[in-house]
Amino acid sequence: MEVTLVKQLYRECEKFADKDVKISGWVRTVRDSKTFGFVEINDGSFFKNVQIVVEDSLDNFKEITKLPISTSLAVEGTVVLTPDSKQPFEIKAKKISIEGTSSSDYPLQKKRHTLEYLRTIAHLRPRSNTFSAVFRVRSIAAYAVHKFFQEQGFVYANTPIITGSDCEGAGEMFRLTTLDMQNVPKDDKGNIDFSQDFFGRETNLTVSGQLSAECMALAFRNVYTFGPTFRAENSNTARHAAEFWMIEPEMAFAELKDYMDVAEGLVKYVIKYVLANAPEEMEFFSSFVDKGLMDRLNNVANSDFGRITYTEAVDILEKCGEQFQYPVEWGIDLQTEHERYLTEKVFKKPIFVTDYPKDIKAFYMRLNEDGKTVAAADLLVPGVGEIVGGSQREERLDVLEKRIEEMGLNKQDYWWYLELRKYGETKHSGFGLGFERILMYITGISNIRDVIPFPRTTGSAEF
Amino acid sequence: MEVTLVKQLYRECEKFADKDVKISGWVRTVRDSKTFGFVEINDGSFFKNVQIVVEDSLDNFKEITKLPISTSLAVEGTVVLTPDSKQPFEIKAKKISIEGTSSSDYPLQKKRHTLEYLRTIAHLRPRSNTFSAVFRVRSIAAYAVHKFFQEQGFVYANTPIITGSDCEGAGEMFRLTTLDMQNVPKDDKGNIDFSQDFFGRETNLTVSGQLSAECMALAFRNVYTFGPTFRAENSNTARHAAEFWMIEPEMAFAELKDYMDVAEGLVKYVIKYVLANAPEEMEFFSSFVDKGLMDRLNNVANSDFGRITYTEAVDILEKCGEQFQYPVEWGIDLQTEHERYLTEKVFKKPIFVTDYPKDIKAFYMRLNEDGKTVAAADLLVPGVGEIVGGSQREERLDVLEKRIEEMGLNKQDYWWYLELRKYGETKHSGFGLGFERILMYITGISNIRDVIPFPRTTGSAEF
Repeated sequence: MEVTLVKQLYRECEKFADKDVKISGWVRTVRDSKTFGFVEINDGSFFKNVQIVVEDSLDNFKEITKLPISTSLAVEGTVVLTPDSKQPFEIKAKKISIEGTSSSDYPLQKKRHTLEYLRTIAHLRPRSNTFSAVFRVRSIAAYAVHKFFQEQGFVYANTPIITGSDCEGAGEMFRLTTLDMQNVPKDDKGNIDFSQDFFGRETNLTVSGQLSAECMALAFRNVYTFGPTFRAENSNTARHAAEFWMIEPEMAFAELKDYMDVAEGLVKYVIKYVLANAPEEMEFFSSFVDKGLMDRLNNVANSDFGRITYTEAVDILEKCGEQFQYPVEWGIDLQTEHERYLTEKVFKKPIFVTDYPKDIKAFYMRLNEDGKTVAAADLLVPGVGEIVGGSQREERLDVLEKRIEEMGLNKQDYWWYLELRKYGETKHSGFGLGFERILMYITGISNIRDVIPFPRTTGSAEF
Repeated sequence: MEVTLVKQLYRECEKFADKDVKISGWVRTVRDSKTFGFVEINDGSFFKNVQIVVEDSLDNFKEITKLPISTSLAVEGTVVLTPDSKQPFEIKAKKISIEGTSSSDYPLQKKRHTLEYLRTIAHLRPRSNTFSAVFRVRSIAAYAVHKFFQEQGFVYANTPIITGSDCEGAGEMFRLTTLDMQNVPKDDKGNIDFSQDFFGRETNLTVSGQLSAECMALAFRNVYTFGPTFRAENSNTARHAAEFWMIEPEMAFAELKDYMDVAEGLVKYVIKYVLANAPEEMEFFSSFVDKGLMDRLNNVANSDFGRITYTEAVDILEKCGEQFQYPVEWGIDLQTEHERYLTEKVFKKPIFVTDYPKDIKAFYMRLNEDGKTVAAADLLVPGVGEIVGGSQREERLDVLEKRIEEMGLNKQDYWWYLELRKYGETKHSGFGLGFERILMYITGISNIRDVIPFPRTTGSAEF
């Protein structure tokens, strides 16, 4: 008999009523009395379990009703609709065979475990309800990102992970090497001889695909990246990981306003797509992780995002009477407390803050007419703060060169980036969205370690 | 006036007949006579250019007809259908404004350039016909991969790039470090003190996400990875890159046959999807890159892949009378010449070769009853050789432990992988498909450096 997936049974249970089916999966719970038992099975295809009713007429009744959790089974039986119970159907077993055994020391017993404990068994935690929901939502959200861009004709650009350049002069980088670190080769002057390294030069893991993506945008007009990105920052917080996934769209013939339109569209699309395609998981999160989740997401999906300038934002914050840990004045980088105040207390919805002082932003952001601010915009959302950062890119070769010099960067390192401005430059804009940030926002999960299957953070690269 | 994308004009040109539109894009060619000129523009949204007809009544006629290639323009004009020409329509210009200038030293002039030369201007080559076609097909094929798996309920698993483990004991790895390489810290015994490194241990870039994907498959049943993978191998060939993208599906409750069905389905799906969604690009490849391309792809998309055992394959090769560079006998690893002979001369279609000798395959492949071979299968395709490798995974804890010891690996390093066998193991299978391999196959491009936007190979990490 062909195996039927549990997802299919749930989606079309009436079609299967009183029919015989075969399923396979892992035991989640076992309850038994003398003459019958209930075995809940999860087959991986669906968030919810199926209840198997086992009667003592079954050959191996005794064995089955004593099985350790996570034993894998094949079950043949009849689908019985149960309209009055919580679950819409159950399966009355005719035959159960044990595919793989488990053990009574299985670490995921049916009790509450802390998220901290579950991180120590990252190889097993996808089998728990929480992580089954998180990682399936991660998959669905990733697909939503691709779908959003592909349907609009954006080209998916795989920008390199290994890089000889340091995009923003910002993030700390991981060095990559095949040199013998026990005996690092040195040149005459005692400097490391990178000419002997794999690439014949110093290389690092990328902190951003943006500069490469700009090359692609000036050919394909609209492109996006979606891939792993790295920061060797020693920040042991709930929001930082050394390895995370970023989405970095770049659009030619596009101004700041166009970027904001696309980013707003993307955030709403991903939220709506997950709500529509993972209703069971989202119900779980809003019951067990964050009661206010659905309201917050529906609010975001259905409101027009606000747009204010940095100067207006500073003005609001200065006059609001709130005591902040970091005092506010024009020129400072907004802190999470400021961002959250603006979006949660003042606007009560997502807002873009635009036109930041040039001195707190990267060299490639387009200088505004005022000579003081740049055409940058960050998207702030209630409960989290910043989730998107982007800007119009400086397309004027002379202005860009001057900015590179002002920032103390080496023009030579950016020769190809500068050439983009020499040969048919256009206004163009782009942004970066941390994929884990939006996942945390959608699931209500508050630690980045819990939205990445095998997280890499300071001091931790297990599994 | 709103900008219309060239793709839309091509797809629905009759709708736009005699209407005024505005487009923006980059100059590809300029031809002029005294009283009129033709400017071909590409706007990035579509493979083909649009011809702009410029008459001398236009204000800036003289300037426009002398523009350097790659100047960016905004054009307003009337769409005129041209049913008798090669192009279905042209635009009669009413107004042309220059958005960004270019220069007469623009390196991509309208003459044939070698692929080698184009690699030295990787920041500009996406603007050439060849790379415009390659990278758009790359994007479309990537989406096809996601679509294929998502529609079947596979969960997309983002397995880690940074790893403390060495999956196959096979590929050379890149070491990752934040240690000061000028003064590498050592412990009492003079060994490198990795406890001071970022992760407090030695870490490398992953050569395969498989072992992590298996953890996910034993929770979600069907999963796939799709992300960058690394090999620090000093092989300067047309088929090897240090950084490439891999697709690694893993399926629980699945035997070797099931993996082959899924892999066959995937390859056919991606080919058909690209043929349907990039017809202009595919026409270009079959005209200018590989005349036999369409026949080969249609053959693959529509034939049932053959399946023979390694032992049968060796038998055929031994008896065929062909002189091979590497002689054939049972036990050898098949070389590309053997693989191509089988698939091109004998079967004339893709074939899976199954059940290889255990000594030439990885420790995690399931040992067959004969004790000599493993349940592995490689997919060989005409013109290329191997493009997929996969196997049923060894699910029996005792057999797996014995294989790890036989191979001289350290059991301790695999504690979590072994635990998957302890807690509800099932038959399961998976495979790896090199994304660039299938792109080379689909486009006819013969060097891996030309299907990756910014390739990383031995001695080369430019841009």
